[in-house]
Amino acid sequence: MQTDIRDFQERSIVIVGVGLIGGSIAAAVRQRFPECCVIGIGRNSKRLKSAVERGLLTEWSSQITSAVLPAGSLGIVCLPVDQIAKAVDQLAEANCELITDAGSVKSSICSSLGDRSVGRFIGSHPIAGGEHTGFEHADANMFLNRLCVVTPSKAMAGATERIAAFWKSIGMTVQQMSPEEHDRILALTSHLPHIMASVLSGCVAENLLPFTGTGFRDTTRIAAGSSSLWTAILLGNAAYCAESIDTAEGLLRKFRESIVANDAESLTALLEESAERRRKLG
Amino acid sequence: MQTDIRDFQERSIVIVGVGLIGGSIAAAVRQRFPECCVIGIGRNSKRLKSAVERGLLTEWSSQITSAVLPAGSLGIVCLPVDQIAKAVDQLAEANCELITDAGSVKSSICSSLGDRSVGRFIGSHPIAGGEHTGFEHADANMFLNRLCVVTPSKAMAGATERIAAFWKSIGMTVQQMSPEEHDRILALTSHLPHIMASVLSGCVAENLLPFTGTGFRDTTRIAAGSSSLWTAILLGNAAYCAESIDTAEGLLRKFRESIVANDAESLTALLEESAERRRKLG
Repeated sequence: MQTDIRDFQERSIVIVGVGLIGGSIAAAVRQRFPECCVIGIGRNSKRLKSAVERGLLTEWSSQITSAVLPAGSLGIVCLPVDQIAKAVDQLAEANCELITDAGSVKSSICSSLGDRSVGRFIGSHPIAGGEHTGFEHADANMFLNRLCVVTPSKAMAGATERIAAFWKSIGMTVQQMSPEEHDRILALTSHLPHIMASVLSGCVAENLLPFTGTGFRDTTRIAAGSSSLWTAILLGNAAYCAESIDTAEGLLRKFRESIVANDAESLTALLEESAERRRKLG
Repeated sequence: MQTDIRDFQERSIVIVGVGLIGGSIAAAVRQRFPECCVIGIGRNSKRLKSAVERGLLTEWSSQITSAVLPAGSLGIVCLPVDQIAKAVDQLAEANCELITDAGSVKSSICSSLGDRSVGRFIGSHPIAGGEHTGFEHADANMFLNRLCVVTPSKAMAGATERIAAFWKSIGMTVQQMSPEEHDRILALTSHLPHIMASVLSGCVAENLLPFTGTGFRDTTRIAAGSSSLWTAILLGNAAYCAESIDTAEGLLRKFRESIVANDAESLTALLEESAERRRKLG
């Protein structure tokens, strides 16, 4: 897919939280739209200065105030999910015209917003990322050909289109759905994988690690991720995560029943259905 | 680790089943010990001829008969686990002096052997492999610095040493344990990962695949493997696989309880313990 540069209409974007995702959004914008101001906001001024030196940001600030927000700016909050609502409210207080985020849960963020944010915020979840953390690993092409979910607001139809156009302009496909629908789907496609990888890693005692092969390594890789980030994600989507665990437990029991019953036919059918599903991903 | 070439004492090895593992054993031996005959046995004579042309084998046969086995040969059965015992018995009938295998279950193979195989067979499980199948992907260095479990026999102490020396000579570390101990450990370190990956893949309907990211891809990669091979492995280690599923289910419920109770402290502890375990693998 070609980036549709004509869709880009921003003169300044404000990124709160300049880590891997925030830094990669900055890099994607700077590479494609050099005339757009990219203002980074974060706690660590030394690191923000370094991001300016690397050319990711045009300006930086350690505080969210109206003084640092050019009129008409698009604010994008790229913080851990349990810190997003507060930052959105601060951007709204600072009169940021339109605000979105990059969090991997949506309902709990939308329902935590203060009054000032209503009418200014539309949630996004660009489904992309990587193993590493920090803007040092920022990748201007991280979002190319990846999917971004945007949770629209009927009362903000024009703003929804503006947010969608932003993500498309850095190469993404955009799909619109409600926060609840997003959370129900991502509980299965993103949150359950983390839980399953963690469970598997937790089942293998340290003294047994020498008996693991590449299968265990691949299957547990994401379990090494930040436990605090993932606590916030799983608790921010608790009901759907519990449902996804129930789905997994039900299927796990079917595998167990086939194995204990020595039922090669049903076990092969279970394995083959999963294998065919996975092969579709290539 | 250096391959200890002095340990190598084979003049001819017979590999039954020249796929990825059998082909890689052949490649490892041919590369290091060019004077050793490597005889491949399989059903598909066209493919075996091709393996000879590639230099993996020195000879081939489509049947296991005494005529194709030089006196004193070491036989290595590299077939799917449910075909190993029969091939071991055929090698024993053909008077093969010492026989081992590369199967990822051990007890069910040992208990299925015929009388002629007793006193000739010592089980092995070289813990190595790869995504692809077929000798075309054979890798002479697949076994370097990897672990091989050998299930020894007190009545065959000298033969156990010979088998261990063979695996060491192609670069492996050898650990001896009973077939039961092997199966109990591998149920957790190898068979459970496949079950968990399959369950996860089976939980995500095809229309939701666009909402998956790299986490799902990694965590389910092995689920694309052969369902017939894995049916044989899981049913060949049924009791321990059921135990490992119970272990996983118990931990899955702990995650669920912490999530439903909104208990950040206990959820972080669960995630962090798994994360630390995984980080130890690097």
